[in-house]
Amino acid sequence: MKAIIQRVTTASVSVGEVPISSIGRGLCVLLGISMEDTQKDVDYMVRKILNLRLFDDENGRAWSKSVMDKEYEVLCVSQFTLQCILKGNKPDFHAAMPAELSQPFYNNILEHLRSTYKPEMIKDGQFGAYMQVHIQNDGPVTIELVSPSAPMDPKQLAKQEKQQQRKEKPRSKGPLESGRERAAPRPRAQDPNASSGADGDVSSERET
Amino acid sequence: MKAIIQRVTTASVSVGEVPISSIGRGLCVLLGISMEDTQKDVDYMVRKILNLRLFDDENGRAWSKSVMDKEYEVLCVSQFTLQCILKGNKPDFHAAMPAELSQPFYNNILEHLRSTYKPEMIKDGQFGAYMQVHIQNDGPVTIELVSPSAPMDPKQLAKQEKQQQRKEKPRSKGPLESGRERAAPRPRAQDPNASSGADGDVSSERET
Repeated sequence: MKAIIQRVTTASVSVGEVPISSIGRGLCVLLGISMEDTQKDVDYMVRKILNLRLFDDENGRAWSKSVMDKEYEVLCVSQFTLQCILKGNKPDFHAAMPAELSQPFYNNILEHLRSTYKPEMIKDGQFGAYMQVHIQNDGPVTIELVSPSAPMDPKQLAKQEKQQQRKEKPRSKGPLESGRERAAPRPRAQDPNASSGADGDVSSERET
Repeated sequence: MKAIIQRVTTASVSVGEVPISSIGRGLCVLLGISMEDTQKDVDYMVRKILNLRLFDDENGRAWSKSVMDKEYEVLCVSQFTLQCILKGNKPDFHAAMPAELSQPFYNNILEHLRSTYKPEMIKDGQFGAYMQVHIQNDGPVTIELVSPSAPMDPKQLAKQEKQQQRKEKPRSKGPLESGRERAAPRPRAQDPNASSGADGDVSSERET
């Protein structure tokens, strides 16, 4: 799971001309759920969102207080485009959890945020709708969070594989063994979606 | 370099009560420059920002047109907090390029965006100032871009090193050789800041 967290003075969501929700000071969280996410990722994200020290304390000391410490609000909006893999210049979203699965998953995250903090301090958007999200980024302060079990960035993986191959060249090794090594750093390499996405991305990326 | 790209209906920057700049439809780009970034990262980012297909075409087909195709604007704001390493719940920004270096570097990016597209279509904030960045995220559509030579996420690195260690255990190898392999996937491992940042992060992260 990926989250883009923006510290805000205000933030709100509207659908068409209809205001859906709004917060004052706090955090606007855009949340990208991947195919691979589990309850472990939810626990991590909820803990980090609520405890990250992104606010000043009463003496103006920066990076001292969390959104809970300050009793500020959280606006959380589902954002599947964060699970983007670039195929050249075209975004591909096959790594994102499909809507029918991600909606209950996302609701579970909201519930978890509400029960850990206070229900009335957690606002959300309208799942799947075409929204306008008004964000007054305060600072600006923007943090990217990646939950620990997120799949690795395919571009970095490819680069790392190439480096590994280069390092391996002078050594005399059987093809089986070196193949096993290159695969080793790839987490969950057995997932067909993850691998094909990565391969497709890398090859087309080089053409641009 | 990391960039958070938000597709916007409008976006603007103000410092105090003073409006600094604003755009209509287009992209709001928050740009996090790291210690390790070079001209290669600039070239990549500029190319991707201007060519990413995040807009519909005239028939409403999604993910078809770039900001240049649509003749929309770009608001680019420097955002060092994107180069954040978490030490528990406290953000640490030692991986960010220091301001005295990142300001000319950032100006170079702006210049490159302007010369590749059109100067009047690229707006910016006020470097180093405390700003309010008003973003009307349209969709929402948010994409994270990481330039190819960015240092790897230290948490993913640590995880991968552990996996590698586990895989290596059954094999009988000299300490030198296995040490070299674990280090291999770490790009630019010779940088003392990058390594110490990564180690610090991982150990403290586990305590929370």
